[in-house]
Amino acid sequence: MNEFELIHHYFKQRYSDAAGSASGISLGIGDDAAVLQPTLGCQTVVAVDTLVSGVHFPENASAYDIGWRSLAVNLSDLAAMGAVPRWFTLALTIPSINKDWLQAFSAGLFGCAQDYNIKLVGGDTTAGPLTLSVQVVGEVADGNYLTRSGAREGDSVYLTGHIGDAMAGLGIMQNRYSAGGTQREYLLNRFMKPTPRIEAGLALSRLASAAIDISDGLVADLGHIAKASQLSAQLQLDKIPVSNPLIELLSRGTAQQLALSAGDDYEICFTVSSEKEQQLPGVFEKLQLNYSRIGEMKPGTGVSVLGENGTQVSDRSTGYQHFS
Amino acid sequence: MNEFELIHHYFKQRYSDAAGSASGISLGIGDDAAVLQPTLGCQTVVAVDTLVSGVHFPENASAYDIGWRSLAVNLSDLAAMGAVPRWFTLALTIPSINKDWLQAFSAGLFGCAQDYNIKLVGGDTTAGPLTLSVQVVGEVADGNYLTRSGAREGDSVYLTGHIGDAMAGLGIMQNRYSAGGTQREYLLNRFMKPTPRIEAGLALSRLASAAIDISDGLVADLGHIAKASQLSAQLQLDKIPVSNPLIELLSRGTAQQLALSAGDDYEICFTVSSEKEQQLPGVFEKLQLNYSRIGEMKPGTGVSVLGENGTQVSDRSTGYQHFS
Repeated sequence: MNEFELIHHYFKQRYSDAAGSASGISLGIGDDAAVLQPTLGCQTVVAVDTLVSGVHFPENASAYDIGWRSLAVNLSDLAAMGAVPRWFTLALTIPSINKDWLQAFSAGLFGCAQDYNIKLVGGDTTAGPLTLSVQVVGEVADGNYLTRSGAREGDSVYLTGHIGDAMAGLGIMQNRYSAGGTQREYLLNRFMKPTPRIEAGLALSRLASAAIDISDGLVADLGHIAKASQLSAQLQLDKIPVSNPLIELLSRGTAQQLALSAGDDYEICFTVSSEKEQQLPGVFEKLQLNYSRIGEMKPGTGVSVLGENGTQVSDRSTGYQHFS
Repeated sequence: MNEFELIHHYFKQRYSDAAGSASGISLGIGDDAAVLQPTLGCQTVVAVDTLVSGVHFPENASAYDIGWRSLAVNLSDLAAMGAVPRWFTLALTIPSINKDWLQAFSAGLFGCAQDYNIKLVGGDTTAGPLTLSVQVVGEVADGNYLTRSGAREGDSVYLTGHIGDAMAGLGIMQNRYSAGGTQREYLLNRFMKPTPRIEAGLALSRLASAAIDISDGLVADLGHIAKASQLSAQLQLDKIPVSNPLIELLSRGTAQQLALSAGDDYEICFTVSSEKEQQLPGVFEKLQLNYSRIGEMKPGTGVSVLGENGTQVSDRSTGYQHFS
């Protein structure tokens, strides 16, 4: 099977199934480039993320999960912008053609694509060490996007869902933690099959003053909001939302401490002014999604964390760094 | 230097220099995603290409040339669509942080970006084996794009510039050919610093019936036009345009034979109806670019090549395959 047959078999067929008149695809896979029809009155939102085997996921990860995760982490960037997912491309580097692997990988990739209504419009397949680079294209109504720089003094800091789970899931895959049954399954899925908070991002796009997704860790990512907004952020350790499976694994206190610097949860951290805060319960009830008030934006720089007694716990957690 | 400082130092500064009010960049590098302003009355054109060290270029390639080439080969896809380059993202996987390498790489990348007026709007830097995945975004006036599928029976087949040079340049880098002086320099540059035919693509967008860029080899790439257009293509071997430096290296006959299946030249192969053919001299004189009539579209399937005496030379050249 050569490269052209490979692309056709695993990717173009599914693309054809997915494309429809509402897809905005004037010309899809199979030419030198895709031609897309932007929506009138919308801006185009573009993000790219690369996953390297052994760096961003363990080498024993399943092909299905790798497919899902490579798209999901990119969708999370669109969520943090308040954008609607539209189209994506895939640059796939694989050591060799393994039909079972490709079958499972494409099932995971297109499973995620279908759930979030985003269409594959192009790609490139090369031989080399397993590396996946996905670029997503979304749309926002003109000017209606979330940034990292819009937080104001006195804004509350919020977080969707729970954090720390993905770090535990990775630890289980690497045999650093042991867990069984539904606890194990939940934590593994939180690492390998993160849920991009697209709906939350859309709902927050007219409500939040700033937003970011948690990929490198809460303190590091909130630090980006603080820096871009020329403020500091003060977190309360006992408000950090951790899940029951994580508490069972680590105890609540340890879970909250580790969750400060754990990455890969892909929840949305956002800031909201006091005038708009009252709208949050209605929004999140409709989304059926947990959310927590975890701190406040203050003058100054950096991110500080207060313990239950009001003393500063840490201001040095820096999150995941790809190089050090 | 951590990842954030790395990105800032080598890429964001130059991005800031390059961005201007006409750039269409509402929000650039430094948030979760870039926000771009599409041009009214235009469609969006998207392509992605990955270059793996040791696969798509020899490991002894210079960092400057790698930077140039990684963008140029993607721009070539926009050229083949007749699109105007606008924005690009870079997914850069590098084994470690080498400041000299990054300095030279970014100089090559932005040198090419400046020449073709395209702006970096986002990226991702990861640790791993040297791999570069570039996605380019261009624009075409609504409906005014070139495809592979528009060739008609009787259309002439044309080619910009010369082909086969890049194959020889790669051979020199790999010590399979020897050349010196300006001949060596010319052939090396034709491999490592290909010229995307953006201006030609734009000029052809209302003239050509079909187009493709030569990345995998003339016979393979013209085969895509033939297949997509449900026709065959007949080439004349003695019309294949080869450069003087290549003729000096190989003799004309051998050069033309090898050029049939040699990839990486990034010239544009296009088809034109007899009614529009007469416009070509004026167009290419303005572009100051060589072009050659090399064959004709016929009923049937596949690509055949006729020698000087009219006998069929080959119909089995299949071009470069990433896997076999």
